[in-house]
Amino acid sequence: MNEPASMPPRACDLVVRGDFVLPMTAGLPEIAGGAVAVRGGEIVAVGAADDVAADWLANDEIAGGIVLPGLINTHGHAGMTLYRGLGDDMPLEQWLHEFVWPAEKKFTNAETVAAGTRLAVAEMLACGTTSFADMYFFQQTVGEVAEECGMRVLLGQAVIGFPVPGCPTPETAFDKVRALDAAFDGHDLVRPSMALHAVYTLTPQLMERGAAVAAELGSPLQIHLSETRTEVDDCREAHGMTPPALCARTGVLREHTICAHGVHLTADDVALIRESGAGISLNPESNLKLASGIADIAGLLAAGVPLGLGTDGAASNNDLDMWDSIRLAALLPKGTTLDPTVVPAREAVRMATVGGARLFGWEQRVGTLEVGKRADLCVIDTSAAHQTPLYHPYSHLAYATHGSDVVHTVVDGRVVYRDRRHTTLDVTDVCATVTRIARRVASTV
Amino acid sequence: MNEPASMPPRACDLVVRGDFVLPMTAGLPEIAGGAVAVRGGEIVAVGAADDVAADWLANDEIAGGIVLPGLINTHGHAGMTLYRGLGDDMPLEQWLHEFVWPAEKKFTNAETVAAGTRLAVAEMLACGTTSFADMYFFQQTVGEVAEECGMRVLLGQAVIGFPVPGCPTPETAFDKVRALDAAFDGHDLVRPSMALHAVYTLTPQLMERGAAVAAELGSPLQIHLSETRTEVDDCREAHGMTPPALCARTGVLREHTICAHGVHLTADDVALIRESGAGISLNPESNLKLASGIADIAGLLAAGVPLGLGTDGAASNNDLDMWDSIRLAALLPKGTTLDPTVVPAREAVRMATVGGARLFGWEQRVGTLEVGKRADLCVIDTSAAHQTPLYHPYSHLAYATHGSDVVHTVVDGRVVYRDRRHTTLDVTDVCATVTRIARRVASTV
Repeated sequence: MNEPASMPPRACDLVVRGDFVLPMTAGLPEIAGGAVAVRGGEIVAVGAADDVAADWLANDEIAGGIVLPGLINTHGHAGMTLYRGLGDDMPLEQWLHEFVWPAEKKFTNAETVAAGTRLAVAEMLACGTTSFADMYFFQQTVGEVAEECGMRVLLGQAVIGFPVPGCPTPETAFDKVRALDAAFDGHDLVRPSMALHAVYTLTPQLMERGAAVAAELGSPLQIHLSETRTEVDDCREAHGMTPPALCARTGVLREHTICAHGVHLTADDVALIRESGAGISLNPESNLKLASGIADIAGLLAAGVPLGLGTDGAASNNDLDMWDSIRLAALLPKGTTLDPTVVPAREAVRMATVGGARLFGWEQRVGTLEVGKRADLCVIDTSAAHQTPLYHPYSHLAYATHGSDVVHTVVDGRVVYRDRRHTTLDVTDVCATVTRIARRVASTV
Repeated sequence: MNEPASMPPRACDLVVRGDFVLPMTAGLPEIAGGAVAVRGGEIVAVGAADDVAADWLANDEIAGGIVLPGLINTHGHAGMTLYRGLGDDMPLEQWLHEFVWPAEKKFTNAETVAAGTRLAVAEMLACGTTSFADMYFFQQTVGEVAEECGMRVLLGQAVIGFPVPGCPTPETAFDKVRALDAAFDGHDLVRPSMALHAVYTLTPQLMERGAAVAAELGSPLQIHLSETRTEVDDCREAHGMTPPALCARTGVLREHTICAHGVHLTADDVALIRESGAGISLNPESNLKLASGIADIAGLLAAGVPLGLGTDGAASNNDLDMWDSIRLAALLPKGTTLDPTVVPAREAVRMATVGGARLFGWEQRVGTLEVGKRADLCVIDTSAAHQTPLYHPYSHLAYATHGSDVVHTVVDGRVVYRDRRHTTLDVTDVCATVTRIARRVASTV
């Protein structure tokens, strides 16, 4: 029998090879000796390296130990890198009143948010994060910085029931969300969302109004939800119901609403969130540091609630390394349930990739390595002492990988971090700018 | 008035400069723009960089962002890097019976322990760890590897009530401790100890015998203590008392006994340990991963129990990065007590340095940067995006530093890791050797 005539190889922009390629598709298979081919920012092939090499002639090639979808940071305040470590180990109220709010009032403007966001983007790209949700001020600036650096972002114009930097009234914030929607229409890397701050900083009327504006724009919602026990107690007292119930009543809790934290939830809350089609962004490191508590990650997973991971802002973490979030998402539930089988390594990595894509409503665009998706991925070096030997790639990702093990990061087919160097920004300059701002902050706060 | 005639500068071997020098002495002061001078392996000056430069002419110089005492890893099984990630996310019994013990039975010998220990030492030195406690087999080999690589070690010949690699009977293990004592007599980097495995693998008679042999040699004791709820329940059932009470009764609990874990302790246990002069090696990451639970770090600290940090073995962590232990020691108590002020950053760094030295009974030799102590230190690069800006050095150490931020490590005055490269071992070769062994392990377990 004749073999079928083989096709001549086609040209593509980039081939990414790995000792292991983890597509993160259903069943979470591993491809030993795999490769991903990229053309026009889109994944055109995923498979055995030899097969990909036979089919595709690459203009450019990168390689490493483990290739996986880029990480998706589902909650944070990028501009707050300016205040990284400004105040730690103190009660939330003291931290907010004596450090964060005075600093923000004095120093947070479009220029400093650009500087802080550029630093956050530099840090996140270097750790293999390719998409992030932001919830802060001056989101037009944040969108511009993300595009300039080649990073994918879900903008979140913060809506709060009192004057904040750039927004004297909540209504100004709603106008800004509309403006963002128009400004970034058709921009592939930047999507806007409405970021309602929390039930304790908004009236139910503002929540309803926010939900209505978001619905009108077809925009996702973000909200801090059930982060602290105080938030839940106060909401019960003020409104006779839990924060998720109040969100449901005001129309905030719905398909693709991103609920950040979800630390203190009742069984009814969990059912409400799951049935609404919303998801939870887990931020285990921030929740520990601010003494908010430990979310029931194993329970939420078992209940089928869509889960993503986040770092929260650098002021309460204090870095933006998603590998810490992955590790804590796998470790904490074991420690609290005393069951070592809950949230296995693969599941934690899933939350940080495809889980995050689902939270943003981006599951058709990113989150897995599949033909037709945009090429967002990262490559892990597994040659270091702490990654040796390698028995199972998922084990290393959850339990032995840190941000510094990332060697290449690709967003939308573009190698934005290559051989541990940024290609779209000058990190020395970015750090110097923030250090100059921080000197002024330190001298006044 | 005449100024006193200044002394001409004296020669020294090494000066280490830092934007901040943290001596970790009482009060935990910081020296901005500081330096440490070293001669003959000993610290001869600590102070402002200008003062040190005026007094000392250095043969060699290194510098970086933060200079602090080398980290002291107070609990681990170095040779188990061979089994890093071999089995995860499964019940302890299954993990031991199906993975660890079969692998150890077949593959753990002097040669493989040398290879695994060399890998552990490479990893630890690269993370700024300068001393480690070991609890494993073939400790003569471990001592030789540590000396060859220039790392400080407290050997711990494991004593277990059944045949283990290298020791057909517990009595053989006692003989080995005596032999270690003789073999490393006068060696500055290597000190032997008796490592009694645990109350559930030893009879009270063997514990008494171990304590007697250790007392005869003047050697510290190590023991796994109250790691799991099962251990405590079984001990109560078998002996009518808790593990610490049994250790006290058998003479095991005493000055400088290193109790690893201490996850499940009663108030009486805590009092017993404190009064005995023993200390606890906290291993928060391993305790989470194996679902042993979460130690009451804040309570132990408040009770005045001497505390050090450890990583445990790479089979249950899965890396040997003490910065993860520091971060968890600061974060976990906040999450479990809902009090953000417990275990502040400085306290967690203290546990990993001077706290560890106290646990080993080495407080006169290492653990702080003071004139007269041996020069064990590490230097942190604070220029990366995730360490920018820098408001408070302790904050960065606890909440934003990873092993990869260490640029130089000095043990006993010798720069064993310089500009992120080992000077005493070939890490590529070390990794290749372990990978070869791991291939055999993977094909049989």
